[in-house]
Amino acid sequence: MDNRPIGVFDSGLGGLTALRQLQQVLPNEDIVYFGDTGRVPYGTRSKETIRRYTREDCALLLNENVKYIIAACGTVSSVAQDELARLPVPATGVVQPTAAKAVATTQNGRIGIIGTAATVQSAAFEKALLAIQPNLHITATACPLFVSLVENGWIDEEDPVTVLTVRRYLAQIKQAGVDTLILGCTHFPLLAPIIQKELGDHVHLIDSGRETALLCAQQLGERDGLADKNTGRCSFYVSDRAEGFSRVAEIFLGRSVQENVQTVPPERMKQKG
Amino acid sequence: MDNRPIGVFDSGLGGLTALRQLQQVLPNEDIVYFGDTGRVPYGTRSKETIRRYTREDCALLLNENVKYIIAACGTVSSVAQDELARLPVPATGVVQPTAAKAVATTQNGRIGIIGTAATVQSAAFEKALLAIQPNLHITATACPLFVSLVENGWIDEEDPVTVLTVRRYLAQIKQAGVDTLILGCTHFPLLAPIIQKELGDHVHLIDSGRETALLCAQQLGERDGLADKNTGRCSFYVSDRAEGFSRVAEIFLGRSVQENVQTVPPERMKQKG
Repeated sequence: MDNRPIGVFDSGLGGLTALRQLQQVLPNEDIVYFGDTGRVPYGTRSKETIRRYTREDCALLLNENVKYIIAACGTVSSVAQDELARLPVPATGVVQPTAAKAVATTQNGRIGIIGTAATVQSAAFEKALLAIQPNLHITATACPLFVSLVENGWIDEEDPVTVLTVRRYLAQIKQAGVDTLILGCTHFPLLAPIIQKELGDHVHLIDSGRETALLCAQQLGERDGLADKNTGRCSFYVSDRAEGFSRVAEIFLGRSVQENVQTVPPERMKQKG
Repeated sequence: MDNRPIGVFDSGLGGLTALRQLQQVLPNEDIVYFGDTGRVPYGTRSKETIRRYTREDCALLLNENVKYIIAACGTVSSVAQDELARLPVPATGVVQPTAAKAVATTQNGRIGIIGTAATVQSAAFEKALLAIQPNLHITATACPLFVSLVENGWIDEEDPVTVLTVRRYLAQIKQAGVDTLILGCTHFPLLAPIIQKELGDHVHLIDSGRETALLCAQQLGERDGLADKNTGRCSFYVSDRAEGFSRVAEIFLGRSVQENVQTVPPERMKQKG
């Protein structure tokens, strides 16, 4: 038994979709969430910068005595996997468990990937997929506008702007005849109904947050690391502007946030690096 | 005569639209541009953070021996005007000259404002407008998605996603019967043709970058501060990822960038603060 909390971090608040999945899979676990809202977005930064941010974010969570770290950020998982491997507690990004699930799911060997520009450019999902099974037909598309649409709250299934944007971004993936699509960004599950409608019911959508939560549960279970006394308490930290948190958190979390949200000053981020 | 360069900064590369205007108004002036691409966007940050960034950005330009500073960022102009007033060289944000032009232009006293969420929430344009003329009917709308659409390059006049987004955001402003619209974000001039079509030719669009360039020319002229020997040389600094610069710069600048682009390391940003 291990009653320490699980740490989850993301470049911003998108990682709350992963937290939501984690709560569904492990409802009793306490969770510490850190959203680096002061430095969001990571997707457009250089590799070196993303690696430094990853070290600083993990140091902050380790300071909260976490037993496991989930990098809920597709960008971090894609370009800073080795930083996660170096931590004193087990950790995972979203790439590995998602790729494993996609390979296990596909029937025709045709897999699509959508993510931010940095995630797609890194080819991290492709590499992970091909390491598991070499003969796959992979089609990857960067969908940078999805992030803004979600943060703008334009996620209604009938929203014409969002429907048109989904159609345009997914044209190539649809044409490629994929039967499995990786949602490689924490924001994208909120557009899943529109994406599903566009591609048809025969295409399986893989939610990276859910697969990562399942891997975390499995790995903690294997090492007797699950909590027995906890009550599913959440603590939230952000690096800028706690005020706007509730509104955006509600979009991602699907519930209102009653818990306290603390702001980490930028100096503290640097000391931890 | 003063042959030192003019400094222009922005949270990212959107300020290049202001640089473009400045080059048209003052083709012989040398310009140093700093785009804080490592910390973009400012629009979603707290007021305190934006003020600190402003001090650091100006310190960097002063170190380049500039004679005048233009804060091409609507967010900075809206929430950190007093930081600009405290500098050892003359400086302007985009708010003051733009508001003056809008009041001089309107016939029916109905003015619209579009900008980022932070610019609209700050009500800086409203305050500046009402300080010049108290009886105005002002309608302001935050258009956060415009930034992503421009950076995505979806700026074609017929682009259905962009046309629909413009229509939705501007519905209230159209209904208000404005005859003058302030484009309160550096990205927005790139959508001017679509905005003009949606609102009709009777509505005057005020480009904040152009008005700011004209004020800079006037103020330098008044104090005999214009250059007589310069050749319109530009130097570019960014705080992250110089690689992507050319592609995005071309969108904003309307020409390819042959000049050298230098990356300022994050440590240097802090020392300057």
